Amino acid sequence: MSFKVLILAAGKGTRFKSDLPKVLHKVLGKPMLWYVVKAAKESGAQEVIVVVGHKKELVEEFLKAEFPDVKTVYQKEQLGTGHAVMCAKELLDGYTGRLVVLNGDTPLVQPEDIEKLKETEGDMVVLTAKAEDPTGYGRVVRDGDEVSYIVEEKDANSEEKKIKEVNTGIYAFDTEKLFEALRSIDNNNAQGEYYLPDVLKIFKEKGWKVVPVLADDFSSFIGVNNRYELAKAEKILLERIVKHHQLNGVTIHNPEAVYIEPEVKIGKDTEIFAPVLIKGKTEIGEGCSIGAFTEIRNSKLGNGVKVETHCWIEGTVLEDNTSVGPFAKLRPGTYLESRAKVGTFVETKNAHLEKGAKANHLTYLGDCRVGENTNIGAGTITCNYDGFNKWRTEIGKNVFVGSNTLFIAPVKVGDDSITAAGSVITSDVPENTLAVARARQVNYEGKAESIREKARRRKDEHSGKDS
Amino acid sequence: MSFKVLILAAGKGTRFKSDLPKVLHKVLGKPMLWYVVKAAKESGAQEVIVVVGHKKELVEEFLKAEFPDVKTVYQKEQLGTGHAVMCAKELLDGYTGRLVVLNGDTPLVQPEDIEKLKETEGDMVVLTAKAEDPTGYGRVVRDGDEVSYIVEEKDANSEEKKIKEVNTGIYAFDTEKLFEALRSIDNNNAQGEYYLPDVLKIFKEKGWKVVPVLADDFSSFIGVNNRYELAKAEKILLERIVKHHQLNGVTIHNPEAVYIEPEVKIGKDTEIFAPVLIKGKTEIGEGCSIGAFTEIRNSKLGNGVKVETHCWIEGTVLEDNTSVGPFAKLRPGTYLESRAKVGTFVETKNAHLEKGAKANHLTYLGDCRVGENTNIGAGTITCNYDGFNKWRTEIGKNVFVGSNTLFIAPVKVGDDSITAAGSVITSDVPENTLAVARARQVNYEGKAESIREKARRRKDEHSGKDS
Amino acid sequence: MSFKVLILAAGKGTRFKSDLPKVLHKVLGKPMLWYVVKAAKESGAQEVIVVVGHKKELVEEFLKAEFPDVKTVYQKEQLGTGHAVMCAKELLDGYTGRLVVLNGDTPLVQPEDIEKLKETEGDMVVLTAKAEDPTGYGRVVRDGDEVSYIVEEKDANSEEKKIKEVNTGIYAFDTEKLFEALRSIDNNNAQGEYYLPDVLKIFKEKGWKVVPVLADDFSSFIGVNNRYELAKAEKILLERIVKHHQLNGVTIHNPEAVYIEPEVKIGKDTEIFAPVLIKGKTEIGEGCSIGAFTEIRNSKLGNGVKVETHCWIEGTVLEDNTSVGPFAKLRPGTYLESRAKVGTFVETKNAHLEKGAKANHLTYLGDCRVGENTNIGAGTITCNYDGFNKWRTEIGKNVFVGSNTLFIAPVKVGDDSITAAGSVITSDVPENTLAVARARQVNYEGKAESIREKARRRKDEHSGKDS
Repeated sequence: MSFKVLILAAGKGTRFKSDLPKVLHKVLGKPMLWYVVKAAKESGAQEVIVVVGHKKELVEEFLKAEFPDVKTVYQKEQLGTGHAVMCAKELLDGYTGRLVVLNGDTPLVQPEDIEKLKETEGDMVVLTAKAEDPTGYGRVVRDGDEVSYIVEEKDANSEEKKIKEVNTGIYAFDTEKLFEALRSIDNNNAQGEYYLPDVLKIFKEKGWKVVPVLADDFSSFIGVNNRYELAKAEKILLERIVKHHQLNGVTIHNPEAVYIEPEVKIGKDTEIFAPVLIKGKTEIGEGCSIGAFTEIRNSKLGNGVKVETHCWIEGTVLEDNTSVGPFAKLRPGTYLESRAKVGTFVETKNAHLEKGAKANHLTYLGDCRVGENTNIGAGTITCNYDGFNKWRTEIGKNVFVGSNTLFIAPVKVGDDSITAAGSVITSDVPENTLAVARARQVNYEGKAESIREKARRRKDEHSGKDS
Repeated sequence: MSFKVLILAAGKGTRFKSDLPKVLHKVLGKPMLWYVVKAAKESGAQEVIVVVGHKKELVEEFLKAEFPDVKTVYQKEQLGTGHAVMCAKELLDGYTGRLVVLNGDTPLVQPEDIEKLKETEGDMVVLTAKAEDPTGYGRVVRDGDEVSYIVEEKDANSEEKKIKEVNTGIYAFDTEKLFEALRSIDNNNAQGEYYLPDVLKIFKEKGWKVVPVLADDFSSFIGVNNRYELAKAEKILLERIVKHHQLNGVTIHNPEAVYIEPEVKIGKDTEIFAPVLIKGKTEIGEGCSIGAFTEIRNSKLGNGVKVETHCWIEGTVLEDNTSVGPFAKLRPGTYLESRAKVGTFVETKNAHLEKGAKANHLTYLGDCRVGENTNIGAGTITCNYDGFNKWRTEIGKNVFVGSNTLFIAPVKVGDDSITAAGSVITSDVPENTLAVARARQVNYEGKAESIREKARRRKDEHSGKDS
Repeated sequence: MSFKVLILAAGKGTRFKSDLPKVLHKVLGKPMLWYVVKAAKESGAQEVIVVVGHKKELVEEFLKAEFPDVKTVYQKEQLGTGHAVMCAKELLDGYTGRLVVLNGDTPLVQPEDIEKLKETEGDMVVLTAKAEDPTGYGRVVRDGDEVSYIVEEKDANSEEKKIKEVNTGIYAFDTEKLFEALRSIDNNNAQGEYYLPDVLKIFKEKGWKVVPVLADDFSSFIGVNNRYELAKAEKILLERIVKHHQLNGVTIHNPEAVYIEPEVKIGKDTEIFAPVLIKGKTEIGEGCSIGAFTEIRNSKLGNGVKVETHCWIEGTVLEDNTSVGPFAKLRPGTYLESRAKVGTFVETKNAHLEKGAKANHLTYLGDCRVGENTNIGAGTITCNYDGFNKWRTEIGKNVFVGSNTLFIAPVKVGDDSITAAGSVITSDVPENTLAVARARQVNYEGKAESIREKARRRKDEHSGKDS
């Protein structure tokens, strides 16, 4: 059965105390609404429509970027969920199929649940769930296989309060009947709003069939109304993601302290020591090890990659058997060919290291290419910026770059060359060349004491000044 | 009704296995006793008195520093809670009002609970709480609106064991009646101690009114007797603090892994990626983002500040829209004006960066001022220490500091100047000046191979030596 | 009563989706099997035999390295637990004592539990446990003091399902009777395997005594069949370890986020801020403080050691009152004598710092010795590698090493010497000597603007080229 999905996403979310509309608040790096739209699409919806309202430009901008085929309708004033659905009437004019209505603030909803709504016969299908503790939820009172009525906590009698089957607030409708019913609901309530659930009574009065269908997991329907609840929802989602990776063959130590976003992929026999954050579209191969205190964003790691503790990696490609850190910062455009290594207190940006190249300590490599098996000494800096332009450094194969070498880009160093430690390389170095740019050492014997003496004196004067 | 508070804080806390007295062990950066005194003060106590005993000098020193108006009395020998209260007799001589007695090892006690004690009529008011699992706690047996008696776990019959209302160990008394009753209690028990709760029987015998008052939350009365319990208490307190910030509009990812001390303030729409530690009197503005693996102590951040991952920040001011890290260490006296930036593997101390100044990589800035829009190259070091004194470096506006520049302080660099990469700046640089202090590059073509050859030979000799 | 232990460790662990055999998957740094063998040995077993199968070479290699006295028998095909035990028949030929059978995938088993099995009289002793929720476990039906039968979940009637005493899968047997009974079991089941628990029926038929003995803690018998369960087991073990340290006088903030391996030792009054990872055979003294975001492996810390946040420490000795970090990487062979200090963005390897020596910023110290009270300036690098060999740097006492000094090893610096900032030290420096190797500063006044002008022009050309 084909169906359309309508997602209510017009609310402000006052309790978020935020400049951002509620459904754009992020859970694991993605707006709540992203999860709802994605679940709708994965469940096979023929069309997804989002009701926007508060700061609609922001919501529309997000949808356009991530889901360009999703349509929006505008709810100018937020007069309740029933009113929100009414706003879609024009867009759905002539549509006689089934309409599933979701809420933009329930990011944990699963495609399987939407599929259940689609597959269940009835003029109105209510998605229900069994709650361990149903307090605060609307109880679903059944009459045989149908829903008799739904009673809110505050109106429930003691028998009704014992019912553990609750309303998730998610429904499927015969679209025409829905809009007919909506015409009959009113806003005679404390809030002065039109409530979508009020159509249930109309459906029953008209003798239309209202059917419950039970979802697997109550936790999928947590509504998120403030940042405390946002964190709760994020935690549940994270547990799902972590378990998925564990069952796929990933070892995660202290899994409660990892943060893995939903689009991340990780190969089997990879071992992760929490706390670690893995974000965006990162892909990690098999048999890797990721040390604690590391954050990886939108990067691609091959197999057997060793990332030590305390790394920051973004927009980077690490081929098989490369090794990184601890204390490495790999910025976008970093590319390590196999067996290359970036070590400790090393930062790279737009840097390509060929096979087996190494930069082990205290180095900045920006806008450069480093040839196969070249060794970059400690303290090396590619001076890529002249205050206005960024320039490139090209270093050949098997080069030995002495410690504290500065490359004043643009500059090229030929294969098999050597730069002397402490040299400032301002012009190109041919192949197999020793480049030196430093002063010769002079020892002034016996002079250290006189320098110390002077410093000591300055201290006395200094103290004198201060007092 | 005005009232005084007496806090029992004389115990050693043997199970802490510590050189520090029990009540000085810290929960979220503050001694347990700090929380109890603070709750007492916030509840409006007219006077707070602390009974000190074990290592009283340390406890008194702490009180003097944090709460100079709190009085102490000395319990020389620890002969029980009843005895502890008796020690305050002299100090309270002539006081006829109400006395609330708290324990120094219950850091979760809330001002609201103390207020309840104060507001409830009765000669002795027992603060009680409903325990999900009351095992181990003294059960409060009511007789109408009064307390009939309290029975300890070990003496309770099966009916009494079912009672879920337990004694929190916190009481309010009519002071004169309390001291009269204390005269009648004995130490005929296994420990040979005088127990404060024993006064209850005396009060009942005398026909004085003993009234229970129920606290909101049982968890507020956890007594902390070892470091396992200390961590449990800290966790509960942390959950309260985190929730407070969340409901105020702060997004915290993986909130169970943040550590936020009680005096920290955070503005709305700030986003925090745990794990993060925020300590002391830190204030963070609105719309900031704090990356994982960061610790901030006693610092002040404006609005829109971006702190990347892996930072260490103490005693620092970051104005609006500044940006820090990853891997930055900002020590006390660091001040970043708006749009200034301190980047990766950069350490600052007593360093003032004016608007838009930048120090992006591998730099040490100590005892210095950096002018507006000046760019500090990678590898820059202010040599502020001569072995005896610390000296200042003053760098003007729009200066371009070449990579690996050393400033031998004291030294001044004028506006619009440039230092050549790799220069050691020993004397002042006027405005708009290029300062160079480095050797010229010489290329010895074809010489790299002979150097390699020599190193190879040395390796062979070396190996020879080793074998 | 003397006894032997047989550990079943032949399985592949398909659900681990791994190249590694199941029992070698690690919990807190040690293979699961390590914990089981260790518990067996600590319980006083006279002999421990492990049944190996899948990738037996790997399991045998591990056992040989860690437990050389443990014997193995080979189960070529994995035909069930009963078959696994049968494989040990030959090795146990003539042994008439008691045999305890453990599973290699229950790493939480405690020596106390094995001792209970040993001490309980009976021809077959079944270790049982009380499960809060027994669903899924075999229920132990008692007949007086004996086991009547054990019924699996799927075969249990509603009365049996209420039983909370479950089978842990751990048994002790009269060895001869066990092997006699094993002859009678069959593999008429879905898997076609011989099940060890099937001997129970045979024992009962023969009138041999089958006795239950109740273990303390159900959680000790969690079987680990995938990495989700591995993490659950690791968490329980970690909680035990953490609580042990807490009760010993160690303060741990946010203990759920620490990772401490089982062989670690920590002295009292040491304070740890999670998240922290402490691995291997690390020993930490009393009164130390360990900052967050730190990982320590196989190191030895004295008393009063201060490790700041963001450190990486391996194979290092830190004497009393030393101080490290934040952002320090101490590699194997690092030795700090008392009061020595390694600071921020400093890496050491095979480096010995004598009393009070300091290396505070942006430094690499490899293969060197630094004398008493010597101060290593920021940016110092020991150039220990010439492309083929590693060479040593020896620095004397009270030396003042200027910032950005490079030591081209092998090189020696005498006591009381000074190196000028920015010097490349290529040859030895005698005592009390000032060594200088740098160019003199020249100021080209007014020239900065022309350089900027040139860079600006290059930018224009550059942009031109790009477009």
